[in-house]
Amino acid sequence: MPIITLTTDFGLRDSHVGAMKGVIWSIAPQVQIADITHLVSPQNIAEGAQILRRAAPFYPPGTVHVAVVDPGVGTERRPIAGRLGEHFVVGPDNGLFTALLEYHESRGDRVEFVHLTNPRYWLPRLTSVFHGRDLFAPVAAHLANGVPLSQLGEPIADILRLAFSKPIPIPNGLRGEVTHIDHFGNIYTNLMRSDLEGKRVREVHLGGTVVKDFVKTFGERLPGSLICLLGSSDHFLVCEVNGNAAQRLGVKVGDSVDVFLEAMS
Amino acid sequence: MPIITLTTDFGLRDSHVGAMKGVIWSIAPQVQIADITHLVSPQNIAEGAQILRRAAPFYPPGTVHVAVVDPGVGTERRPIAGRLGEHFVVGPDNGLFTALLEYHESRGDRVEFVHLTNPRYWLPRLTSVFHGRDLFAPVAAHLANGVPLSQLGEPIADILRLAFSKPIPIPNGLRGEVTHIDHFGNIYTNLMRSDLEGKRVREVHLGGTVVKDFVKTFGERLPGSLICLLGSSDHFLVCEVNGNAAQRLGVKVGDSVDVFLEAMS
Amino acid sequence: MPIITLTTDFGLRDSHVGAMKGVIWSIAPQVQIADITHLVSPQNIAEGAQILRRAAPFYPPGTVHVAVVDPGVGTERRPIAGRLGEHFVVGPDNGLFTALLEYHESRGDRVEFVHLTNPRYWLPRLTSVFHGRDLFAPVAAHLANGVPLSQLGEPIADILRLAFSKPIPIPNGLRGEVTHIDHFGNIYTNLMRSDLEGKRVREVHLGGTVVKDFVKTFGERLPGSLICLLGSSDHFLVCEVNGNAAQRLGVKVGDSVDVFLEAMS
Repeated sequence: MPIITLTTDFGLRDSHVGAMKGVIWSIAPQVQIADITHLVSPQNIAEGAQILRRAAPFYPPGTVHVAVVDPGVGTERRPIAGRLGEHFVVGPDNGLFTALLEYHESRGDRVEFVHLTNPRYWLPRLTSVFHGRDLFAPVAAHLANGVPLSQLGEPIADILRLAFSKPIPIPNGLRGEVTHIDHFGNIYTNLMRSDLEGKRVREVHLGGTVVKDFVKTFGERLPGSLICLLGSSDHFLVCEVNGNAAQRLGVKVGDSVDVFLEAMS
Repeated sequence: MPIITLTTDFGLRDSHVGAMKGVIWSIAPQVQIADITHLVSPQNIAEGAQILRRAAPFYPPGTVHVAVVDPGVGTERRPIAGRLGEHFVVGPDNGLFTALLEYHESRGDRVEFVHLTNPRYWLPRLTSVFHGRDLFAPVAAHLANGVPLSQLGEPIADILRLAFSKPIPIPNGLRGEVTHIDHFGNIYTNLMRSDLEGKRVREVHLGGTVVKDFVKTFGERLPGSLICLLGSSDHFLVCEVNGNAAQRLGVKVGDSVDVFLEAMS
Repeated sequence: MPIITLTTDFGLRDSHVGAMKGVIWSIAPQVQIADITHLVSPQNIAEGAQILRRAAPFYPPGTVHVAVVDPGVGTERRPIAGRLGEHFVVGPDNGLFTALLEYHESRGDRVEFVHLTNPRYWLPRLTSVFHGRDLFAPVAAHLANGVPLSQLGEPIADILRLAFSKPIPIPNGLRGEVTHIDHFGNIYTNLMRSDLEGKRVREVHLGGTVVKDFVKTFGERLPGSLICLLGSSDHFLVCEVNGNAAQRLGVKVGDSVDVFLEAMS
């Protein structure tokens, strides 16, 4: 039973997601559908790319990941589908797959993309404003049914990639950036486990506050404590134990974070 | 594998939806369950009717659509089930199926309804406050299992219908009404594609603002532009590119919208 | 087709829930997954316990209920799994299963728990911060596949239980407590149907207001009326017809509720 996942900014109040599921099951009645999230911040392609990257690799081979954060719907931006190792992706060519693609490339997986040009695999009527329903959902269902990529469109090698900001060196440390605030108010940064290897975190400056407490998990400190730790996807996070760090520190996506390090002795 | 869809105002924080799914799978373990939405505005039957209308037709034949926006639960309002073409519906007789019913009638589909009077197909204990779980979920599961409508209750021909407001003529145009604000803040109206046929949109007045830009899709204009266009369900919408038009214009459901038209030359 | 349910405080904006589903389907591709809720108030174990109790019993035999409200993740708190009658539960040993366990005990169901100590049934890499994905999801999938509890860890008899507050007698009545505010703003209390048996509700005092109208269901009174009634899980509720009682009365979880009763004549 193949799986199709959905990652969108469509929200949960409207008919959009429900319509996509109907289209998918009309073509591929045997698939399971998993909502990764429909609450990507509206039009925030970079956020969608990161969420997809953190969830998609946990799915089994053959899974088709549909992602639709698509401010360019109906314009010249291309609809695409791709194969990343044993997984498939379907969505707009606007950078949404960058992080997942880089993950598969770092593992040496085979990757290929096509420009979706074959309307035989779309709904009969293509609107200009809802390719999620009219184009991406049916293509995903046909992929799940075993239709090969090559029938869906022309091979392309130049898909659009986002340039994610990387931490830059500062005296005795690294300057990174806030990339995501999660449901708990935990502050995600673009510093990764690998940036800290062999070093000790001395202190972290963000939102006018200094955080000095680097721990392995939340429960090591009392509720209300400000801590930093490595999250479950190897990102460096700043958190409040049982609280909302982003609200407390007034921090938002894009803010800079200075992490001061010292060599482990 | 038949599908049961759910459209409710139960929200996502409580046990209600989870309990309904348990009831359904206890009776019909092989069905797929699709959440259309559980965030219909509380007790807003007209909104629920419109969302159901926009999503349900995309499902395959045999799908059972359960809709529960039910301020009259446990009173004299009748529980009903119906067949609309190749689809089934289950829920309260309060107008919630009006828009979907009108859609099927406009296609000449066969429609029939029954008053759900046979407690054999309900949970053994019927509460006065949660027919979604105790009556509609089990009836939907039995329908998915192939139980015919005729076993569930008595045929009825007088189900309650909402009277949706229609646009009215004004000099050089039409006065419509805001019917829905979607997750992005796009403003839906009761003007449809058919109301504009053969005409050009000259300007739109709503919330004290004039919008003159009628386009095919969002990406034709710069972020922040106010535009109007035909949405994916053929409604006439007013939107802000990459922004929230409803917030910007201070518009809410029920507000009037004047659309001035001129003949295409 | 076994079912796995999920009850968490992870929210709907992040990759967490999507990652858990991927892990589950990688191990047990044939299961159905039901979201009970992911909007338990952050770290609110008692709330999660009550929601699970109200939804879980409606699922068929063999269902595996995963619950993760887990402020102690990665500390000494034990990961556990249990069998409650014909159902299974998986999650942290922090009281989250108390209400469901008491329900099964009250029915005389057989109950047993194990401390999850066998890493063979976890993801190869266990993070300190996300046991939902790394430990509980895979264990649940293995249980759904038929792996016996005894292979997952050591039997334990001392799982942690929450002490839920019980109503206390006051002159001519009972003093209870607000335990939950639902999506509609209905106010749940810890008084149950059994507390009212053979008695008539004379008046209810909470939030500085007196409510005197005890009814069977919402539609018996006009919109805007304050009423009290027995909810679908036998809790005593205070509600506003088609309105938000909690907002109107300024009431929150933990507030006390005095219910004055008189004998039925």
